[in-house]
Amino acid sequence: MAEQSPKLNRIGLAGLAVMGQNLALNIAEKGFPISVYNRTTSKVDETTERAKLEGNLPVFGFHDPESFVKSIQKPRVIIMLVKAGAPVDQTIKTLSTYMEKGDCIIDGGNEWYENTERREKAMAELGLLYLGMGVSGGEEGARNGPSMMPGGSIEAYKYIKDIVLKVAAQVPDSGPCVTYIGKGGSGNFVKMVHNGIEYGDMQLISEAYDVLKSVGKLSNEELKNVFTEWNKGELQSFLIEITADIFGIKDDKADGYLVDNVLDKTGMKGTGKWTVQQAAELSIAAPTIEASLDSRFMSGLKEERTEAAKVFNFGDIISPEKVDKEKLIHDVRQALYASKICSYAQGMNLIREKSIEMGWGLKLGELARIWKGGCIIRAIFLDRIKKAYDRNADLANLLVDPEFAKEIMERQSAWRRVVTLSINHGISTPGMSASLAYFDTYRRARLPANLVQAQRDYFGAHTYERTDIPGAFHTEWFKLAKKIDN
Amino acid sequence: MAEQSPKLNRIGLAGLAVMGQNLALNIAEKGFPISVYNRTTSKVDETTERAKLEGNLPVFGFHDPESFVKSIQKPRVIIMLVKAGAPVDQTIKTLSTYMEKGDCIIDGGNEWYENTERREKAMAELGLLYLGMGVSGGEEGARNGPSMMPGGSIEAYKYIKDIVLKVAAQVPDSGPCVTYIGKGGSGNFVKMVHNGIEYGDMQLISEAYDVLKSVGKLSNEELKNVFTEWNKGELQSFLIEITADIFGIKDDKADGYLVDNVLDKTGMKGTGKWTVQQAAELSIAAPTIEASLDSRFMSGLKEERTEAAKVFNFGDIISPEKVDKEKLIHDVRQALYASKICSYAQGMNLIREKSIEMGWGLKLGELARIWKGGCIIRAIFLDRIKKAYDRNADLANLLVDPEFAKEIMERQSAWRRVVTLSINHGISTPGMSASLAYFDTYRRARLPANLVQAQRDYFGAHTYERTDIPGAFHTEWFKLAKKIDN
Repeated sequence: MAEQSPKLNRIGLAGLAVMGQNLALNIAEKGFPISVYNRTTSKVDETTERAKLEGNLPVFGFHDPESFVKSIQKPRVIIMLVKAGAPVDQTIKTLSTYMEKGDCIIDGGNEWYENTERREKAMAELGLLYLGMGVSGGEEGARNGPSMMPGGSIEAYKYIKDIVLKVAAQVPDSGPCVTYIGKGGSGNFVKMVHNGIEYGDMQLISEAYDVLKSVGKLSNEELKNVFTEWNKGELQSFLIEITADIFGIKDDKADGYLVDNVLDKTGMKGTGKWTVQQAAELSIAAPTIEASLDSRFMSGLKEERTEAAKVFNFGDIISPEKVDKEKLIHDVRQALYASKICSYAQGMNLIREKSIEMGWGLKLGELARIWKGGCIIRAIFLDRIKKAYDRNADLANLLVDPEFAKEIMERQSAWRRVVTLSINHGISTPGMSASLAYFDTYRRARLPANLVQAQRDYFGAHTYERTDIPGAFHTEWFKLAKKIDN
Repeated sequence: MAEQSPKLNRIGLAGLAVMGQNLALNIAEKGFPISVYNRTTSKVDETTERAKLEGNLPVFGFHDPESFVKSIQKPRVIIMLVKAGAPVDQTIKTLSTYMEKGDCIIDGGNEWYENTERREKAMAELGLLYLGMGVSGGEEGARNGPSMMPGGSIEAYKYIKDIVLKVAAQVPDSGPCVTYIGKGGSGNFVKMVHNGIEYGDMQLISEAYDVLKSVGKLSNEELKNVFTEWNKGELQSFLIEITADIFGIKDDKADGYLVDNVLDKTGMKGTGKWTVQQAAELSIAAPTIEASLDSRFMSGLKEERTEAAKVFNFGDIISPEKVDKEKLIHDVRQALYASKICSYAQGMNLIREKSIEMGWGLKLGELARIWKGGCIIRAIFLDRIKKAYDRNADLANLLVDPEFAKEIMERQSAWRRVVTLSINHGISTPGMSASLAYFDTYRRARLPANLVQAQRDYFGAHTYERTDIPGAFHTEWFKLAKKIDN
């Protein structure tokens, strides 16, 4: 019962969960007639129904893959929005059966970048083109303008450039939130790190909330006002905005505010984990993102935490300092912003290192630009990052960009106050304290790593370098020590 | 020119770098005649020379793999100590050519556990047995008694049980530091986590050093005395002992103490990285070990750090509190010990989670027992861990063992003082502060993760649970928020 398109459509989309539906409607709304397909065909009808309701958009549904593929004009472009992993392979298999040389498949999911590289090669053998395109913005972004990170075949990108430039979020003075990222799996990799940074942002905001609520005793109403205020300044961002919204929502199933009745268990889907694993693989310190991931893991241990709270029930013995609410709000704002700089520094350095390893030639400033709108981490802050890389494309670390350095200098006292205050109250701020340790480690010319290396040489003859003479040295520490002792 | 053994030898060892030489000499010294082989044959002669010098030990050298293999009594057992990865595969290929059904190869290197699982299967197809056996203790341990973690074929373990029980470090009242770990790659996995814990210990000690030196202004002589003193109590361990030794060594190439002229760059070989990646894979929070790995990464950025130190040259503006040296030494000792408990809790939980995933049935208390001697992390502390698991094999986390809980309670004030003091002095203690955040997160019944989950439901419809009603819920946060605003 699929509706028939009078002529061939410009593009196709397979996989009609909410993200897929919304992206299809967005594309159609921008003037590109689109064919849609889903294995469970009720989703196809659901989508075309929505297309009618949302303004008779040119969305054409198909219940079988062959007629779906054949309804698209050549060279055919099909975006898949299905679950990462095996479902992607399955969908490729189904669709490619009916596709012809020069056609193109685009994976819009959160796929592991190596899978995209493998598929791009396999597709090339069939004469097909392939893109792995990270799409951020959640359901709302997909419908109204996401940030998109297409990587892979540049020829394929050319087929869709006119579409994605219109479909993406549009940022005044900065353009559409999409660009050709680079070869191979670079689009997926960049999206993965975007998500890792998103974990960091969310964790840092939750810590700010925790300190303000647990130490500052702010009510939800006060919290809403604080975040609303913060959203007018340097912290202005989608996540701060929705946080302010959240504090305003009353519970419809119980008394009080909904946020207080939400269970403190955080789910996750894998991109944060991959980010941490890749950082380790590439020797990039990413403590803020790691702390965010660990906090999600520990949030899941609700029963264990409840038991541990009974064992360590000493809330009263931590002497609470007298807290000036206004000063605390000011300090937490500074701590949140300074920590955020550290988190982004880690993410950007991870992307740069991977780009070097893979020869992707990624432009960090351009990535910051396309994250300015559409995506979950969209923020005024990203414009500062773009400008930092505009000033110096080879910036070793965002921390030492003159503007960011100045902002950190202005905030470091408040930052230290928030972390130490929290520690004295027994409130953990793993993300903020990991960020501060990152900063204090990075800005130290001399670390105690000399001792670690001396230990390694002592028990494993791993050798060490010296501060004064070039070369690798080994010392018979044990023998010398025994000589001293005797 | 290989010396000929009059009769077949009990065991063979291939790969004669220092670790291999030392383990061969150790085995021979315990009364097991051993054949040795190395691709670069000069190492063979070096080993037999040493065997003569160190007491005419029954070590028999061979310059070709065939005569090497055939010099060993059946079922043949050969330990390899070659570089992990491709060299192991190469050595297996060379040796297995001459081996017969029922013979056994043991990899004594720091191998990735999945490689061992793959090889065990491949060997089984040839009728050969295989073990992956982590060996810890460095060169000295290999010669005089290491801790050994053999995993894989239990039949193969039976062949070598009499040997490893004698060769391993012997701990009074606790026995030899070796046991059959479990199936497959479990021996390698346990050794990997051992090394991750080792990273944690070394980092925490270096932070204690840093605080005492940078804040407390202790001289190397004072540091030596402090660590010597600490080594008599609850911190007694190999790493504390060698740290005391290190502070006593004068430089022979410049004035002063050698440790001050060692470059603050720490090398690494991969097991710490794997530990962090596996922790992420298994959803186990391991912040202390992550901080240790990150610190090694950042130690490598010496040039960047030197530049950053110029940018953030505000040592003077951090108001240093007046420091009581004796109190600081006391506090740092407490902070180090409390942090160490957190680090081991992370490592043990990682092992347990993997054991569950793989069905290895690992006994955590028994692992603590075989780490009590021989290995780099050997410490009196491990006896406490063993006892904690003896008390309760299903302990959710070391932190909530009654004895450890008590020890932490006694130390938590000092621990908080050290971390906050360091923060106020601009000295990073990433390991100690990550440990403290781990503790403060674990012991909280209610975390701010409710906000993170509310955010996820807001932008991604990921749903949330409630504290009061079972089920998964979704709220149209955006619509409700707009209603409020209008």
